[in-house]
Amino acid sequence: MLYSKLFCKTSKTTPADADSVNARLLTQAGFIQKQMAGVYTFLPLGLRVLNKIQNIIREEMEKLGANEILMPALTQEESWQKTERANLDILFHLEGRGETKFVLNPTHEEVITPLMKNFIASYRDLPFSAFQFQTKFRNEPRAKSGLLRGREFLMKDLYSFHATEKDLDIFYEKVKKAYFDIFKRLGMGKETVLTFASGGSFSKFSHEFQTVCPAGEDLIHLCEKCCVAVNDEIIKEQKVCPQCDNKALVPQKAVEVGNIFKLRTKFSDVFSLTYKDNLGKDRLVEMGCYGIGLSRVMGIIVELFHDEKGILWPETITPFQAQLLAIGKEKNVFKEAEKIYQQLIKQGIEILYDNREDISAGEKFANADLIGTPWRLVISEKTLAKKAVEIKKRDSKKIELQTLTQLAITLKR
Amino acid sequence: MLYSKLFCKTSKTTPADADSVNARLLTQAGFIQKQMAGVYTFLPLGLRVLNKIQNIIREEMEKLGANEILMPALTQEESWQKTERANLDILFHLEGRGETKFVLNPTHEEVITPLMKNFIASYRDLPFSAFQFQTKFRNEPRAKSGLLRGREFLMKDLYSFHATEKDLDIFYEKVKKAYFDIFKRLGMGKETVLTFASGGSFSKFSHEFQTVCPAGEDLIHLCEKCCVAVNDEIIKEQKVCPQCDNKALVPQKAVEVGNIFKLRTKFSDVFSLTYKDNLGKDRLVEMGCYGIGLSRVMGIIVELFHDEKGILWPETITPFQAQLLAIGKEKNVFKEAEKIYQQLIKQGIEILYDNREDISAGEKFANADLIGTPWRLVISEKTLAKKAVEIKKRDSKKIELQTLTQLAITLKR
Repeated sequence: MLYSKLFCKTSKTTPADADSVNARLLTQAGFIQKQMAGVYTFLPLGLRVLNKIQNIIREEMEKLGANEILMPALTQEESWQKTERANLDILFHLEGRGETKFVLNPTHEEVITPLMKNFIASYRDLPFSAFQFQTKFRNEPRAKSGLLRGREFLMKDLYSFHATEKDLDIFYEKVKKAYFDIFKRLGMGKETVLTFASGGSFSKFSHEFQTVCPAGEDLIHLCEKCCVAVNDEIIKEQKVCPQCDNKALVPQKAVEVGNIFKLRTKFSDVFSLTYKDNLGKDRLVEMGCYGIGLSRVMGIIVELFHDEKGILWPETITPFQAQLLAIGKEKNVFKEAEKIYQQLIKQGIEILYDNREDISAGEKFANADLIGTPWRLVISEKTLAKKAVEIKKRDSKKIELQTLTQLAITLKR
Repeated sequence: MLYSKLFCKTSKTTPADADSVNARLLTQAGFIQKQMAGVYTFLPLGLRVLNKIQNIIREEMEKLGANEILMPALTQEESWQKTERANLDILFHLEGRGETKFVLNPTHEEVITPLMKNFIASYRDLPFSAFQFQTKFRNEPRAKSGLLRGREFLMKDLYSFHATEKDLDIFYEKVKKAYFDIFKRLGMGKETVLTFASGGSFSKFSHEFQTVCPAGEDLIHLCEKCCVAVNDEIIKEQKVCPQCDNKALVPQKAVEVGNIFKLRTKFSDVFSLTYKDNLGKDRLVEMGCYGIGLSRVMGIIVELFHDEKGILWPETITPFQAQLLAIGKEKNVFKEAEKIYQQLIKQGIEILYDNREDISAGEKFANADLIGTPWRLVISEKTLAKKAVEIKKRDSKKIELQTLTQLAITLKR
């Protein structure tokens, strides 16, 4: 991508209303633009990151054998009355024509449970799981912290359906593992810990995936031996590590980035989602639900990985692998840089080429650091004289000269 | 994809509340499921079609040099008051906390125009264009006809920004051409005609792309010489073909599938979106907007291409290129079919393999016709004896036996 054609204008000044590191850096670096508190436009760089996060999550969901679907944002308010959740204070209510009342779904149990009545009849239809990437809405009283607490945000939600509690338990453990794999691939595996939270009326615990981060609004109590934590909400009942009984739990601020929950028959009971067992008897379907906030992941990554100059994107979700900067005023530099840019594209490397001719070297360097791709490549009269390209990692001070062949190997590693 | 793993249950019975051919066939064939009038869930087959439509449109937008972004569904009602559109009867209104009022955007001029104030300063920033794929909401008084008139639907919207009216005109013509290319690639080029409609206060005409189709709710007057039409709304002022002055226009029912509109400075004036010209003088930005309804395209395609047995998907947007049916009770048939399925996947051919063992041949044939992929492949004892696969086009009666090598060539054509 040519920088001159990209819808991105980086800014040296901090946005006046940025209330968090992620809001500030993502806005300054041209990834997002605020519409209002908790509601953002994703500009091309931001959309590229969001799509990469989505692809990683999709791959892991497909490994679980889950089917991708897309449910609507609108539902009849009636469905939420059935589950006694119509008064949830984070629900947005809408008036349709006549007497009809709608709700904007902040989660989709009220949609998928009745939907599955068309597809589940017998034990032979189970187990079954479906997921979606969908925009969620929450009438948030304190939308803030950039992408961390939104009124409108992108989520992956997975729902599973089982004949027995035991089968639900088995799948639940598989999802737990998939979530660890996902956070590892997203580059936030080390900071993200399984956290024991309230299980509601059916289970002892549910599980959250909490990312330890100073910007977090949640308080968790971390067992540094097991790398699991207890949510502050249940610390009075659960004072020790649930895995090793360690009493020396360390309080940490954290952001909830995912949660997994055994719904059991809570929703299948309300909507009469039943199946016939092998004796022909009707039984309630056992259910689980599993969420990850994608736009929130993007915000957390920036909170975790930045320095005073800008963002440091992990390799797996960076908008581009490298930025190529043409430095100098000589036409020849831009001509050669264009050639190298085309050759790198051919090698399948994602490059953002800063081809602007009227911008100083200092400004281009600062801009590249702000955007924060893992690699920076520089072409100038000096590098051309040595028939090489200057390469530097975003998080290192070491500058190397490499030939194009070496470069391709370095970037493909 | 294995049929047994696919979230799809076809049905022989017509859904009681299906009010159109597309609602009936897409529901029976397991592509969509109705949530309420005008609001649908896309099941895996439906989502595959939607994604293919999206990819075709995205490619053509990128050819225009437009940047992909993603704007939010929520906006402050205030922005809609500014443009005097807050009372539009199709707007959904929401109450936030305190005094805040929101609107669910049915279109995005109220978002992108103020947004661009951060990115457009000088004539050097123009021309510029950005597009998105985004869920739109309309408080529709008569949501009906399946995917044709939705309360919640997927749209591509493109917005362009120009220094001069002349530059807007040039881009407008490029988009017109891109739209013809898109509808051709979607397989509905022949049925879709450029239709002259009211241009509002600034232009003589705007242009709609109308697909001639008996299920359509619009009335257009078609010039059969030029393949352009006049919308019934302006037929009193424009009684002849605007291109050849032909007076013998033929009234036809049609569905509006896209529209392109010169907004001129209507919105840039309200939001003070200006640029400095080369003399340093502030001028209003000229704007255009260009929409295509993706879920509506899916509905129209089914209205256009179906027979009494089911859907006939165009090659470019079919959920799978071919369905492979294993027929018979012999284990060997399923074993060989599995091998052939794997080999076709390796060739990059998208196959839905009906591997169900307890389903009769007749039922599998009927099911395949209902789903409607362009090709049907059959493997049975009989075909295995001839070391071949039976191949049939969905819209032909001719059945051929082909070797695997021939098959790959046929399907890749």
